[in-house]
Amino acid sequence: MSLVSTAYAADAPFAIVDPDLSSWLAPARRDEFDVELALRHAGTRRVRIRSERVGDETLPAVLVTGGISAHRHVAAHALDDSAGWWDAQVGVDRAIDPRRHCIVSFDWIGADGSLDAPIDPADQADAIAALLDHLGLRRLHAFVGSSYGAMVGLQFASRHGSRIGRLVAISGVHRAHPYSSAWRALQRRAVQLGALQCDGIDGLVLARQLALLSYRTPDEFDERFGAPQVVDGRVHVPAEDYLDHAAQTYAARTHPTGFLRLSESIDLQRVVPGSIAVPVTLVAVQEDRLVPVADAYALAQGLRGETRLRVLRSRYGHDAFLKETAAIADVLVESLETGA
Amino acid sequence: MSLVSTAYAADAPFAIVDPDLSSWLAPARRDEFDVELALRHAGTRRVRIRSERVGDETLPAVLVTGGISAHRHVAAHALDDSAGWWDAQVGVDRAIDPRRHCIVSFDWIGADGSLDAPIDPADQADAIAALLDHLGLRRLHAFVGSSYGAMVGLQFASRHGSRIGRLVAISGVHRAHPYSSAWRALQRRAVQLGALQCDGIDGLVLARQLALLSYRTPDEFDERFGAPQVVDGRVHVPAEDYLDHAAQTYAARTHPTGFLRLSESIDLQRVVPGSIAVPVTLVAVQEDRLVPVADAYALAQGLRGETRLRVLRSRYGHDAFLKETAAIADVLVESLETGA
Repeated sequence: MSLVSTAYAADAPFAIVDPDLSSWLAPARRDEFDVELALRHAGTRRVRIRSERVGDETLPAVLVTGGISAHRHVAAHALDDSAGWWDAQVGVDRAIDPRRHCIVSFDWIGADGSLDAPIDPADQADAIAALLDHLGLRRLHAFVGSSYGAMVGLQFASRHGSRIGRLVAISGVHRAHPYSSAWRALQRRAVQLGALQCDGIDGLVLARQLALLSYRTPDEFDERFGAPQVVDGRVHVPAEDYLDHAAQTYAARTHPTGFLRLSESIDLQRVVPGSIAVPVTLVAVQEDRLVPVADAYALAQGLRGETRLRVLRSRYGHDAFLKETAAIADVLVESLETGA
Repeated sequence: MSLVSTAYAADAPFAIVDPDLSSWLAPARRDEFDVELALRHAGTRRVRIRSERVGDETLPAVLVTGGISAHRHVAAHALDDSAGWWDAQVGVDRAIDPRRHCIVSFDWIGADGSLDAPIDPADQADAIAALLDHLGLRRLHAFVGSSYGAMVGLQFASRHGSRIGRLVAISGVHRAHPYSSAWRALQRRAVQLGALQCDGIDGLVLARQLALLSYRTPDEFDERFGAPQVVDGRVHVPAEDYLDHAAQTYAARTHPTGFLRLSESIDLQRVVPGSIAVPVTLVAVQEDRLVPVADAYALAQGLRGETRLRVLRSRYGHDAFLKETAAIADVLVESLETGA
């Protein structure tokens, strides 16, 4: 795999279509299977697990997970060249490179709306263990999780520690902060308020808009958006246009039940830090309004294995894992080089 | 007035009903009148202005204003002994004492829902000028405004500077921060979402819950509320009970149009600091999530008159003016002693 694309520009110095390797798409596989899972709050249920693997399956496996709106399509690959949600970090010459690792990912259980029950982050960890069994993977070189994915990573490290070389947990910790839980509870109220109408999408749009606010920071908004104006007898706030566009895109591809249950799931996060003995790299962001950096300190102090904590500054707050490409890449490269 | 109540406990040393003066209620007057106001964004309108005055009308006048949910009933008085919204600061032996000042207050124009048009904070300032004319008050000893009231106070100091001895502006500045404006815009969306139903109150409840979150801080919630639980197949967040109770109380006494127009009004705030030459005491709160302390620094630097800036620390964030009784009282006492 590592030899495929170095010749790209050689024959066409004045018509370089792909000056680097970034357009080379790694081979990939999709899998889908059903499994019986003993859920913490809802008994045993049959759930469908949908996964992707990118890169040579003999390479060390790196599981990549993101926020509740993330999914198995992490990056473009030969089977599906549409953009993934983390192309910035996953791809040829990126921090997580399919020439060095086999990248495993999956859709959160419950995301498709078919599991209308409380879903614990521990359930997601158990689903991952079942996925590894299904794929014949004894052990992950690393688990890279951001936001909700970091919470699930901590659960996985606690419950299935022997199957993981290193956890990289970005902007997610061992508990849900009570203020952030309240914020999410109100997002769920918005969905419920919308559900009382015929058109169910408006509630989900509002919920997502509220979530987006919590992901970003005042400094970013101050830089991006100007003063409100009176338009047609109403006050129009410039940020509304951004929030409308982003939330409508999201709502069009998201099942309200999937949103509700995964939003709830974040609030069920509870991991005893001392139950984790694997090496962990924690990344926290000073400006994160959902996950206070103090909680990352508390987590770091409680972990039993080798622990590194990186605190970043970012005007993107909780969304730093999507926006601070260089800083996140540095952490990933360093963490994946060491590891198991 | 200062002599009325010192005898209270004298004859009943073993049955002290009122060990201090706090139960003595000052005389008060209510006024109500209509005035033509040239609104900035909606032409000339006839608006009703409802005011209260507490204490001897020959004493120096102190105008007291609060947030958009505040009203003319600032404190209990002889005409209406029900609790006011700022009894902690206004009353006998309190920082603003009816034995030393005549306390003037009014209902925000638009609060009753009768003015369904954009209301600029400058319009409120002009309404106050009209109120002073009506009451025969040439000049205020001080204007004490918190939150939206501080914004209106800055407008008043800019537009009617000759009528004010000192402005005390607590947790409100010369502009609306773009992030806070976005937060309010989403509250207004919640009201609109609710308005699509038959029962209009749910949207206002959700809007108020969102507002309450913005008034408080993660530290307070972390101290008050425990971990979410699964109840009847749903995740229940402990803070929801508090938010439900507080928001339902609010929604029951608030006109949705009044909320919408006053919420918008905050976002129309724009004062050039250099247009203000009167003495100003600014109070900012480090933890305020709506009014970043950086904006208070910018305002303080731009004011032309004598300026004092007090930065408080408070786990109550934007609501410090309602909760940090001692610290706010200190500022008020000091500010009212000097002044005009």
